[in-house]
Amino acid sequence: MDFIATLRAAWRERDSLLCVGLDPDPARFPAALAGRPRAALEFCRAIVDATADLVCAFKPQIAYFAAQRAEDQLEALIEHIHARHPGVPVILDAKRGDIGSTANQYAEEAFARYRADAVTVNPYMGRDSVEPYLAWGGKGVILLCRTSNPGGADLQNLDIGGEKLYERLARLVAAEWNGGGNCALVVGATYPDEIARVRAIVGDMPLLVPGIGAQGGEIAATVAAGQTADGFGLAINSSRAILYAGAGEDFAAAARRAALATREAINARRAPRAGD
Amino acid sequence: MDFIATLRAAWRERDSLLCVGLDPDPARFPAALAGRPRAALEFCRAIVDATADLVCAFKPQIAYFAAQRAEDQLEALIEHIHARHPGVPVILDAKRGDIGSTANQYAEEAFARYRADAVTVNPYMGRDSVEPYLAWGGKGVILLCRTSNPGGADLQNLDIGGEKLYERLARLVAAEWNGGGNCALVVGATYPDEIARVRAIVGDMPLLVPGIGAQGGEIAATVAAGQTADGFGLAINSSRAILYAGAGEDFAAAARRAALATREAINARRAPRAGD
Repeated sequence: MDFIATLRAAWRERDSLLCVGLDPDPARFPAALAGRPRAALEFCRAIVDATADLVCAFKPQIAYFAAQRAEDQLEALIEHIHARHPGVPVILDAKRGDIGSTANQYAEEAFARYRADAVTVNPYMGRDSVEPYLAWGGKGVILLCRTSNPGGADLQNLDIGGEKLYERLARLVAAEWNGGGNCALVVGATYPDEIARVRAIVGDMPLLVPGIGAQGGEIAATVAAGQTADGFGLAINSSRAILYAGAGEDFAAAARRAALATREAINARRAPRAGD
Repeated sequence: MDFIATLRAAWRERDSLLCVGLDPDPARFPAALAGRPRAALEFCRAIVDATADLVCAFKPQIAYFAAQRAEDQLEALIEHIHARHPGVPVILDAKRGDIGSTANQYAEEAFARYRADAVTVNPYMGRDSVEPYLAWGGKGVILLCRTSNPGGADLQNLDIGGEKLYERLARLVAAEWNGGGNCALVVGATYPDEIARVRAIVGDMPLLVPGIGAQGGEIAATVAAGQTADGFGLAINSSRAILYAGAGEDFAAAARRAALATREAINARRAPRAGD
């Protein structure tokens, strides 16, 4: 399946720009899951089943599984999403980046082993480090551009002859790396002006926007800065604010309520849609 | 154990600047290992045991294990190096890079799960994405600076007000990120002039230099550009040229001969050493 096409369809069919990030932290699991051998899988699967009709994508973060020696649970989770919730693309948040021969292995990891529809990639090593992912055709390649953390400015905002490094990267991706039409960019919600600059550079390329919720980014400013003319163009990620909305046995229901509220808060700020 | 101190001791005790990269590619294993369930571990362990007295470090590349669902073999390999070859530090080549909460998980993966002595980290997300690794104290944090691949220039060589991005990064790491004295930098052997520029910026900070052998970097130019005044300062990595020096059952002996020749080629170009 083609990631970009699937994402665009999911935006419309589910009327949602919300991406739910799956960052399973055992320290924050409800008590009923404590000590269970496949707690990360059980936790994430409950969140997925409670929110799948409200989201345009799920984004599991591989570090949380790797730190727990739970790669098999990540495999099972993605398998579950594909089987039970077809049409919802899975973005593997891995932020890999390495030379071609090693990038081939990372692409194999993301797309063959985990069966992700898209993967986040760090662009610091340049075009040939990204090509092995692009070579998978319909799979999505989501490049870090302007990240939502304070240190993101250390390199990304350096001035390159009148533009910032992140702007140069956006231009490079739009003009040169996106020949196959399967690229997207990560731009943090904490800097709406910068979302607007990236949007101006990349046309209607999808933007993955972390940073709302726990990281403090404002939904209204994010949507205003990043949406395309038709009111789409964004996968706005929330992880902790949804995963840990409730701490009790009803954590999945609490997550659903949080996802619903977030989707509605996003939709309230979007451009008028067909039927409005 | 302190990574930087261990590396410095290994340089002297083994009279070697050679780091052997462990990138197990099943397509290139000798026939005797084909189809064996723990072939990656068996292959790497044989290479390690045949070369440990000739190297200053081993650098397993996690992508090769992850693509094969062989994380358990990577754990066993590093455990083997620590048990059998104490004093040889293990650099986990992972090139992770993410925001603080996720970086905590990646640091846990590298240092607690895999028991690596150092890890390679991608600096694109800036200082707060690196701090969780630095917080582990004696563990080494080896930041990508100027990488050996052709696309490395796409971002790393952009001009930032009179200096290149990789130079700015080297300056940032030396002046601000290395307060704990546990940082090092990756600078590719394919660009000796750039190794010299980085060396001029960072004093005697260790440099991890990939790109000799299969990638074509010249040993003489690398050593001349990168060594410190006392003839150390570099961990010069070779992976494929050593791992796949032989294709038959004597692959480990062939790897030893290649490692010996590479160490000697490096040493022949080093500054005069004590006792010379």
